[in-house]
Amino acid sequence: MKKEVLSNAHSDKLFEQVYDYLLERIIRGEWKPHEKLPSVRTLAADFHVHRLTVFKAYQLLKQNRKVYVKDKSGYYVQPSSILPVNSQHDPIVSAYVHESHLSEIHQVQAAYQFSKALLDPNLLPNHYFSEYVKKVFDLYPKVLGTYSTTQGDQELREALCRYFIHAYHFYLSADELLITSGSQEAIDLIARVLVKARDTILLERPTYSPAIDIFRRQGANIIPIEIHRYGYDLDQVEMFMQRYKPRLFYMNPTFHNPTGYTVPAEQRKRLVEISKKYQCLLIEDDPYRDIYFDEEPPLPFFAYDTEGSVIYLRSFSKYIAPGLSIATVACRPSLMKLLLKAKSLSDSGAPLLNQKIFLHYFFSERLQQHLAKLRIALTIRKDIMEEELSVTDWNWSSPSGGFNLWMKLPESIPMDSLLRKGIEQSITFVPGSICDPLREYTSWVRLSYSYLNEQQLREGIKRFVGLSCSLY
Amino acid sequence: MKKEVLSNAHSDKLFEQVYDYLLERIIRGEWKPHEKLPSVRTLAADFHVHRLTVFKAYQLLKQNRKVYVKDKSGYYVQPSSILPVNSQHDPIVSAYVHESHLSEIHQVQAAYQFSKALLDPNLLPNHYFSEYVKKVFDLYPKVLGTYSTTQGDQELREALCRYFIHAYHFYLSADELLITSGSQEAIDLIARVLVKARDTILLERPTYSPAIDIFRRQGANIIPIEIHRYGYDLDQVEMFMQRYKPRLFYMNPTFHNPTGYTVPAEQRKRLVEISKKYQCLLIEDDPYRDIYFDEEPPLPFFAYDTEGSVIYLRSFSKYIAPGLSIATVACRPSLMKLLLKAKSLSDSGAPLLNQKIFLHYFFSERLQQHLAKLRIALTIRKDIMEEELSVTDWNWSSPSGGFNLWMKLPESIPMDSLLRKGIEQSITFVPGSICDPLREYTSWVRLSYSYLNEQQLREGIKRFVGLSCSLY
Repeated sequence: MKKEVLSNAHSDKLFEQVYDYLLERIIRGEWKPHEKLPSVRTLAADFHVHRLTVFKAYQLLKQNRKVYVKDKSGYYVQPSSILPVNSQHDPIVSAYVHESHLSEIHQVQAAYQFSKALLDPNLLPNHYFSEYVKKVFDLYPKVLGTYSTTQGDQELREALCRYFIHAYHFYLSADELLITSGSQEAIDLIARVLVKARDTILLERPTYSPAIDIFRRQGANIIPIEIHRYGYDLDQVEMFMQRYKPRLFYMNPTFHNPTGYTVPAEQRKRLVEISKKYQCLLIEDDPYRDIYFDEEPPLPFFAYDTEGSVIYLRSFSKYIAPGLSIATVACRPSLMKLLLKAKSLSDSGAPLLNQKIFLHYFFSERLQQHLAKLRIALTIRKDIMEEELSVTDWNWSSPSGGFNLWMKLPESIPMDSLLRKGIEQSITFVPGSICDPLREYTSWVRLSYSYLNEQQLREGIKRFVGLSCSLY
Repeated sequence: MKKEVLSNAHSDKLFEQVYDYLLERIIRGEWKPHEKLPSVRTLAADFHVHRLTVFKAYQLLKQNRKVYVKDKSGYYVQPSSILPVNSQHDPIVSAYVHESHLSEIHQVQAAYQFSKALLDPNLLPNHYFSEYVKKVFDLYPKVLGTYSTTQGDQELREALCRYFIHAYHFYLSADELLITSGSQEAIDLIARVLVKARDTILLERPTYSPAIDIFRRQGANIIPIEIHRYGYDLDQVEMFMQRYKPRLFYMNPTFHNPTGYTVPAEQRKRLVEISKKYQCLLIEDDPYRDIYFDEEPPLPFFAYDTEGSVIYLRSFSKYIAPGLSIATVACRPSLMKLLLKAKSLSDSGAPLLNQKIFLHYFFSERLQQHLAKLRIALTIRKDIMEEELSVTDWNWSSPSGGFNLWMKLPESIPMDSLLRKGIEQSITFVPGSICDPLREYTSWVRLSYSYLNEQQLREGIKRFVGLSCSLY
């Protein structure tokens, strides 16, 4: 028994050695793109290891899209695996900072911003907000003189807890909620606490672009999971969890960004069980839940979880109050302790004023009326976008909720030119490669219908279609 | 048996931690080819692991041809192991969370909180705040529906820029200011952008405790610089800069926390020159500038800098509006670019509402009147604390500004008992060791006079003195 354990440990080490050897040389570009790699037989001889060990290393490299197989003749270098030489930055500092490509596109000022998955400020009940603010000052006259706690205002956490229990049947206490300044802070905290360099994680493909950047910055080894109209291929997910023991699976399963897909209820239950079995945390990012066009989405994954396999991440910025930057994380106490420690090093908690305004607004009747109106307004905008796109033969799935439409353009359209000429003509969109952990999807685009009004949408899509057609 | 498995798993984790640490840094070229690596003894001490664990990590690296052994004198970097400099593969941050001890003390509820260097909310012009908020909603009706930019509101940055130029003779443009949610976020961003594991930095001794935790979390090698009533020993600082090439010197030179000392003007000018010479950035944290008891403090270091040697960090949380969490960082464009990229991964900028309220409050006449009153109120509180302490023969320097009094107790008083019995009697304070990068100063305490009213202060200090005296 003991001997077996030892010999397993030994063979793991040999495996790592071969895997590291190959990975580093591929990343460093010692083999050229499409160059044939040493055979299993050769490497086994060179490393004095069993051929099966080399075979397993190549299989993992294949999964991670570092190599590909051709005609059974051997393994070849996947071109995208080699690090690009980034000469435009100070070499010393470039090693520290990753580019957030999405934030760069957002800096472009344009008349037709299909790149912004943000709500048109005109769709918010702006003239009512000042009432809630006045109420907050009446109730808490010292609110601007008071720090929040790191975990967030107790009154707000208790109210959210009751809401989650009532609306989604969560099994939850207020101590299991953390208030953050937006969901990106929450993802960043989770990544800092849970992921260290060379940890393997699962990410949807495509996915929310800043999540790719955040987990990459941690040095994570990313395995992509395709998301389809029907959800995930759960057998594949299980196989990956079994084989690679990923730390976590970051997912956006409800009106998914960018595709608009929703993972069905039956998959939710099963995936929670699978993730429990393989001890892979599910990070459920749920920012669009209330924006459905036909029927309400299935319950969150968190509702199926009793043993701490799911972290639920809910932003209220997207359609409630972008200017308040309030989000919340629900997770079990052992993990909460780690998140709190990490957060206490970054700040003293989300500003109390914002938490109190949010509390009184979110739990007002007016918000529910507002959400109903918002769903109608966004359905109309989504329909306008689809109507204007219907003159083309391009492929997209009509979204059943959320802010985004994910569409495949003809492959003959050069994406770089489309992006550049779009900006020249004051039209911005998100190129699909940015949403792809593998940086492929070069013919896809994400168009958001949430930010522009009906006229702008109609005119902008007409121009976008015209521009695209002029390029092929 | 079970226990053995657990302890094996634990030691595997420690082994992995050391192995990963070394491998990543070798690949990234942090040690030069043929450079000598840290000794087994050093690493074992730094990582708090057994020497055998480090030895095993080196053995595996040797097998993997990352290091070689020379003449039994130690381990050296195998030249072929290093990645090209411009690689985008940058696993920066270790996933290991450090404890923030100060935040733990702050969680203790007590009647006599001398631990909180926060302003008594009663000292803020609370009844005026709602007026500014109303004004903000009148001026920007869509403020709650609008995201800020990552860098911060343009109008606020322009106003702050004019203020800094006028008040402190800064050479500055609005593009050289970043708005953050409090100063801790700013320190965290700076640390993430500038400091990687084993980089050397200078910290004052004693210093602001969360800064120690933040830089430690980055894996920095910390060299302490003693701060005295007359400032620093500049010859020593220069010697350290020359010898250890530190990346930065984090300092709090004006009404220093915890000592209350202020570095004199003549040292400021010279230190800027020295730091320029050795390319060591000065991080000037300046949260207490307006709280002086006699005369205004000397100009910030930033005023003496024209070439980007100083980063100026100004929090407005301490005495302006804790509930708004607004701070700003002034630095030159090359560094700003890096901070912006890092910040864009954490959030979409400080909430716009808070920035706009701050803008209209900070630049009001009422604020200037408020500050004058605040200085008087805090002078009175500080005097009460000193008066009550004067019955003892303990040592402290009377602070000339800020919120804190730094005091040496007789060495015969056991600090642990004092802390524990204090909490039992509803008295909290900050033990000096928390403010010390070396975790010594076991007879020192930081007492803040900013949070309690005059009566509470008098009563609390009487009790503190009584308790301390009972322990020796």
